[in-house]
Amino acid sequence: MRVHWPRPPEGCRVDTMSVEVSTGDLTGSIDVLVTGHPKDGELKAVVDGGAVIVPFAGLSPEARRRLLERPDLRVYNVHANAIDVAELGLALLLALTRRVVPLDQALRDGRWERDSGMRLAGRRVLLLGYGAIGKALAIRLQALGLYMTAIRARGPFGHDQVAEVHPAHALHMLLPSADIVINTLPLVPDTEALLESYELDLLPRGALVLNLGRGETVDETALFEALQSGQVGGAGLDVWWSYDGRPCHHDFEAMDNVVFSPHRGGQVDITEDERAAAVDALLRELMRGDEPDSRVDVERGY
Amino acid sequence: MRVHWPRPPEGCRVDTMSVEVSTGDLTGSIDVLVTGHPKDGELKAVVDGGAVIVPFAGLSPEARRRLLERPDLRVYNVHANAIDVAELGLALLLALTRRVVPLDQALRDGRWERDSGMRLAGRRVLLLGYGAIGKALAIRLQALGLYMTAIRARGPFGHDQVAEVHPAHALHMLLPSADIVINTLPLVPDTEALLESYELDLLPRGALVLNLGRGETVDETALFEALQSGQVGGAGLDVWWSYDGRPCHHDFEAMDNVVFSPHRGGQVDITEDERAAAVDALLRELMRGDEPDSRVDVERGY
Repeated sequence: MRVHWPRPPEGCRVDTMSVEVSTGDLTGSIDVLVTGHPKDGELKAVVDGGAVIVPFAGLSPEARRRLLERPDLRVYNVHANAIDVAELGLALLLALTRRVVPLDQALRDGRWERDSGMRLAGRRVLLLGYGAIGKALAIRLQALGLYMTAIRARGPFGHDQVAEVHPAHALHMLLPSADIVINTLPLVPDTEALLESYELDLLPRGALVLNLGRGETVDETALFEALQSGQVGGAGLDVWWSYDGRPCHHDFEAMDNVVFSPHRGGQVDITEDERAAAVDALLRELMRGDEPDSRVDVERGY
Repeated sequence: MRVHWPRPPEGCRVDTMSVEVSTGDLTGSIDVLVTGHPKDGELKAVVDGGAVIVPFAGLSPEARRRLLERPDLRVYNVHANAIDVAELGLALLLALTRRVVPLDQALRDGRWERDSGMRLAGRRVLLLGYGAIGKALAIRLQALGLYMTAIRARGPFGHDQVAEVHPAHALHMLLPSADIVINTLPLVPDTEALLESYELDLLPRGALVLNLGRGETVDETALFEALQSGQVGGAGLDVWWSYDGRPCHHDFEAMDNVVFSPHRGGQVDITEDERAAAVDALLRELMRGDEPDSRVDVERGY
């Protein structure tokens, strides 16, 4: 099995993997291509019926477009960072409920603020997306005494001891009973602007919104106006509408009930080791002829 | 049973309690006094063998001194805020591991910082104190994939499915294997300056320290110097060494690996309701002649 990873990220040592992996420029044909950003020449080198491993969660629109032109290829994701995104989600949620940033800033100036926020235990969470990240979040939030409901595009649905899982079309039915909405969805045609004014208005007043998925799944103007009016009580944002300097086009910076996070959900000190180990495990499954369970539906984009 | 609560906190409606409770000035003798700050006249009014409910966790040194003069009285605490302190502990810990405050501040200025911190799952926590707050923390941290060890003054010791619980004298043995130390101890003679340079140096380099108990249980200069040298990798502080304007005497304000929190562990929007409900439950136990399990050992101070 010939495996090629053109541009492994810094710190990711492919020479320590148990499967031989070439890097850099490509010569000859290959069975497995590892990359999140396949170039045309790289995809042409993959044999008919070969595989592409996108070593993170989701597909970029560009990668999706190119992979749709090669329907013979099996495409897989790597979810090594689910724990780290879940921990970041918890960090942002607790930063909101306990006002960590504004109270830290005030006390550094000698001001002892008293408004200390709200209790999480007993609140109801609606997870948008129930893949590896959604499940890692649900397990943690359940232990904090929260009640978990989730929607996902594909089954299984029903109650799995952690969350009550519904199909995507139940969204409008579920929003009115969500104290906290946490988005972990990738950006695909179905999820673009999934939360607009209509959806935010369905929430109970003061509900919290966390976005750990992709910025464009939430309408920026709608969220800004909902925060201004108090309809949304706070937002924790790890993903944004712009990645060029300023992350947003409205004045979220003036709001102390928004936590800013620079799209680093899956990035912690050990992630590149974990990513290599997860790619390695996936390659070994492919060599054995097993079907890894992180197969991507390229049409849907995840 | 005559119950008197001289100064219930704002928002605490004693008229909704199921037991009749008088407030304000005191006339005649009483069976139960509810206060965290008993005055001499108030204590004198309590009948021999009566009870005092201190409606929070721990005793102030002043209250302890006065209560020691009335050894006939049974003294109880109320632990209604354990969940809130535990949630704050988690908020401060995750703020440290994921650098929530500095990354928020940078991105508000348009700077996308990449150093994103460390994964919590798999780390080892040493809890100093294993009362209501310690247990609430342990349950939550265990669900996040952390390994829990605790010390406490009184048994039971051993493994209780959540944490491995040791007597207090095991502290020096346990510090070298603690990635994170969380203090929930009250201030009593035994706990004053419990963590000095010697103890902090026993930790693995870069360990995190959380203080949710009382400021004076950690030596301020020792912690400051350990943070400067990198021996301690970060600190989340809800309790302080000064409560008069500036909370500290060293330049902790210059450190971005310290999270400042204005001693508000137990304060959230619903706490006064919960406090009244917890006092009410305790009073009903006393009326039935039951022995509530939040009895305070006044000599020890908790």
